[in-house]
Amino acid sequence: MLTKEENELMTRVGPGTPAGEMLRRYWWPVAFTEVVRTEARPTKVKLLDEEFVLFRDGSGQLGLLELHCSHRGTSLEFGRVEKNGIRCCYHGWLYDRAGKCLEQPAEPEGSTFKDRIQHPAFHAQDAGGLVFAYIGSEPAPLLPGYDLLVREDGCRVVGGGEEFCNWLQRAENSSDGAHSIALHAAGYPNMAMKRPTIKWEPTALGIKETTWVEGVTKPRISHFVFPSHVRHSAARVGEQPRQVIRFRVPADDTTTTTFWIDFYPHKDGQPTRPEPLKTRGFKKDQAGVYERVEDGWWNLPNREQDRVAQETQGAIADRTKEHLATSDQGILMLRKMIREAIDAVKQDKDPAGVFRSAHDPIIFDSSRDEVEALT
Amino acid sequence: MLTKEENELMTRVGPGTPAGEMLRRYWWPVAFTEVVRTEARPTKVKLLDEEFVLFRDGSGQLGLLELHCSHRGTSLEFGRVEKNGIRCCYHGWLYDRAGKCLEQPAEPEGSTFKDRIQHPAFHAQDAGGLVFAYIGSEPAPLLPGYDLLVREDGCRVVGGGEEFCNWLQRAENSSDGAHSIALHAAGYPNMAMKRPTIKWEPTALGIKETTWVEGVTKPRISHFVFPSHVRHSAARVGEQPRQVIRFRVPADDTTTTTFWIDFYPHKDGQPTRPEPLKTRGFKKDQAGVYERVEDGWWNLPNREQDRVAQETQGAIADRTKEHLATSDQGILMLRKMIREAIDAVKQDKDPAGVFRSAHDPIIFDSSRDEVEALT
Amino acid sequence: MLTKEENELMTRVGPGTPAGEMLRRYWWPVAFTEVVRTEARPTKVKLLDEEFVLFRDGSGQLGLLELHCSHRGTSLEFGRVEKNGIRCCYHGWLYDRAGKCLEQPAEPEGSTFKDRIQHPAFHAQDAGGLVFAYIGSEPAPLLPGYDLLVREDGCRVVGGGEEFCNWLQRAENSSDGAHSIALHAAGYPNMAMKRPTIKWEPTALGIKETTWVEGVTKPRISHFVFPSHVRHSAARVGEQPRQVIRFRVPADDTTTTTFWIDFYPHKDGQPTRPEPLKTRGFKKDQAGVYERVEDGWWNLPNREQDRVAQETQGAIADRTKEHLATSDQGILMLRKMIREAIDAVKQDKDPAGVFRSAHDPIIFDSSRDEVEALT
Repeated sequence: MLTKEENELMTRVGPGTPAGEMLRRYWWPVAFTEVVRTEARPTKVKLLDEEFVLFRDGSGQLGLLELHCSHRGTSLEFGRVEKNGIRCCYHGWLYDRAGKCLEQPAEPEGSTFKDRIQHPAFHAQDAGGLVFAYIGSEPAPLLPGYDLLVREDGCRVVGGGEEFCNWLQRAENSSDGAHSIALHAAGYPNMAMKRPTIKWEPTALGIKETTWVEGVTKPRISHFVFPSHVRHSAARVGEQPRQVIRFRVPADDTTTTTFWIDFYPHKDGQPTRPEPLKTRGFKKDQAGVYERVEDGWWNLPNREQDRVAQETQGAIADRTKEHLATSDQGILMLRKMIREAIDAVKQDKDPAGVFRSAHDPIIFDSSRDEVEALT
Repeated sequence: MLTKEENELMTRVGPGTPAGEMLRRYWWPVAFTEVVRTEARPTKVKLLDEEFVLFRDGSGQLGLLELHCSHRGTSLEFGRVEKNGIRCCYHGWLYDRAGKCLEQPAEPEGSTFKDRIQHPAFHAQDAGGLVFAYIGSEPAPLLPGYDLLVREDGCRVVGGGEEFCNWLQRAENSSDGAHSIALHAAGYPNMAMKRPTIKWEPTALGIKETTWVEGVTKPRISHFVFPSHVRHSAARVGEQPRQVIRFRVPADDTTTTTFWIDFYPHKDGQPTRPEPLKTRGFKKDQAGVYERVEDGWWNLPNREQDRVAQETQGAIADRTKEHLATSDQGILMLRKMIREAIDAVKQDKDPAGVFRSAHDPIIFDSSRDEVEALT
Repeated sequence: MLTKEENELMTRVGPGTPAGEMLRRYWWPVAFTEVVRTEARPTKVKLLDEEFVLFRDGSGQLGLLELHCSHRGTSLEFGRVEKNGIRCCYHGWLYDRAGKCLEQPAEPEGSTFKDRIQHPAFHAQDAGGLVFAYIGSEPAPLLPGYDLLVREDGCRVVGGGEEFCNWLQRAENSSDGAHSIALHAAGYPNMAMKRPTIKWEPTALGIKETTWVEGVTKPRISHFVFPSHVRHSAARVGEQPRQVIRFRVPADDTTTTTFWIDFYPHKDGQPTRPEPLKTRGFKKDQAGVYERVEDGWWNLPNREQDRVAQETQGAIADRTKEHLATSDQGILMLRKMIREAIDAVKQDKDPAGVFRSAHDPIIFDSSRDEVEALT
């Protein structure tokens, strides 16, 4: 149970808020690489209650700028991407990807006004079919080398969607594997309502959660990756087993975006076989509207189950009324990590999971074999 | 004319507000009996700015619980109704209709945590085809035996709808019969724009309003039933004469639900003839959107007339600008009753119309004969 | 760049705000003459964050009254227009166009209550196919005789639409011709991205802006008409040259209505040829939703370009972050005029552009010849 003040502290993500400043120390996926093509239409991005325009200039480099033109505030989402940057539609100011203003076509010949404009510019990079953004304090850390971003021995499918609730509800869900026996009972009939035995272990990146269920020979392993992501294997009934990472991205206080990677390893382990990336796109839903089925459980199809469980807690869950149980130890560990990360940032130290030096791919021990054992 | 403060005092219905606490001393209809079937999907209920889940367990008993699960707040609207209660979709906690937690399937064997959970539970009962709820302080009073809830000598039809305005606008409409000569002119051509003579008499339950119109041989009698209901006979042009009660239910500060019963007495007065209940269901409208017709008056069909007259006063009418007239004496009596009821509740006394002992059916003298005389 | 306080001061339009009080000293178009026909259904009007009902009584005279009935606040939009005025649908109170209450059909015979009701009434008049309203302090000034309201030597087409942004964004756009080289590049290819030379001259009514573009023989002349209108000639590619006035009307803080007149002078200068008024009606858009095309520029059709440039600055643009340039001198002049007009009204003097005596038509020197030269 949190006090009202603690709940506010942990959930608010805007600039200047304690959690917001902490969350700004991480890279976040914000778009699909396939969509942000060279000189294609720009993409509007909302991240941590701020707005940006994302584009790829004529040199193939990504640009991530403050959304509103420095001149009079028109959205650069409606600008034109050119060889050297992006041009605002209103008066034609041209910015390069570093936020330098290159042209102001309505200003007099010889004007140097453009040289005194520095439009806010941020970091963006591609990895695994997604575009990641960093909008926090400089210098930017490295994007962590999570295995599914860098592995080449399989087929990668990326997609996304949004949920109309605060990021912490999504993060708590990511650190809470116990809900699978109930919420996902229809998809995992061999686990349905079976009392689990769960072990939580802190890791350098978050929490390793191991779950044993009677009658299932191998345990289920799921990794919570701070601040809000989850890395596990998935194989619900009717689905092909795969490795999964799901990034839960705070768009604003009451909207959380998911970008996910499903990775299907080659059966023969052949890393060199070419496999085109598949982009499933962004699934748009309507707040509070859910598809229903008849499955004898909650009558919700797979893709709606987590939406319902988290959105219906409210836009920002009221944690002053919760009753955490033994099976919620992952939640308690997560909240402790949040407090420590906020404190670290206040002291201008890197919070956990921030990488500043080159490192090997980060492998998670949630192998495909274990998936098969579970289903 | 009310001051801004008085208007706030009388209109706000949330927990802890003076009117809200007073209104919590009454039973309110919140659903149709036909919809809340045994082990059917649960129903979400909004009443007095609070949210509940309503269901009928395997024993046929009604349960009315706080909507959000005591565990982590997921809505029980998406739970499963079982023999012994309702089970939350997120982690499978099972509650009986008294709010006792019977199962927590993800907790370790032998855990007693469930025994320490008391989920907020409230009262619900069936009457006349409707489900009534009581969410106020204990002990709950009796549901008043209004005639149309208990009479068996006719056919009962129930239905409902919602209006996007505060409850007091609906209550004032219920105590104001004078508007029929104007707003309902198209439906009552023999009364249209005819100057009425009106007598208001306080009753144990509210106000009896008797209206004489020149050329109509018998007066029209309408009963305002505190806090906001109206009991009368209705027979607009093209409609079969019937006895009517309309319950105006404060869902929140700016939404008011109507549940109504239309009662068609048998012509032969035979009380034993079986007549199945008819449930017309809940009519969903869009705020501020009204069907139009061409009738030479307001160009509004019957069912839109009251919506327009009350909704267009604003979400909460600004009574600092009103000019009450002689024909508004029912409004003044209503407001006096509200003040007295608020005062009674503050002194922890029962306000008017709260019943605590068994009583005969409450008969209203708005007979079918009078209906026929009017049309 | 404005401070937060200056931005608030200039943008808020409700009753009692400094800019709101200033803007109330002007006439504003609010409807089409063709729509407000004798005894037709009344029209709801929102102006300066207040609501009104507009109608034409049986004598052909316009009435503009406070929207909410003085009795109990029901909207007169659903009233019936009669020979002598408008009748409220709820209890049938009848008001004449001066706000006098003529009838109260539910009140007792001989009641004089109606004589003590003065419903708020305002000024309305027709001009050039539009209905203009004045809701400020008395006495009302004259409606200025702008040429396109009174000229008879051509064909007049009127229309309108709304934008989901504050009035000042629209006013600034009206005093900023420089944007045409960029935002309207697709429609004016001979000006596209050509560095303009611009001269701004204060006039009795606002600002005369003259723009020279290399390779275009004659300058473009545009008149900003205080508080927010623009008068110019227009001839985008594929359109017939015409004289134009666009009135930008503050409906509320974040909605601005445009009423426009396009005037096509007869080629033979024959003033007596009869030309029926054409009313194109009010184009309804959805906030933030824009049609897209492929034109190599911003991929926005003509009619969306200004919507995008102004709406995407935000509901109320944050001018604390702007960077005004040399080509924004019209903006600076406009803001100076606003400050002076607010100060004048505080001293109960007429601000600029308020007319109190009969005057000749106000001719603007933006002739059709110049239009032809530009295209």
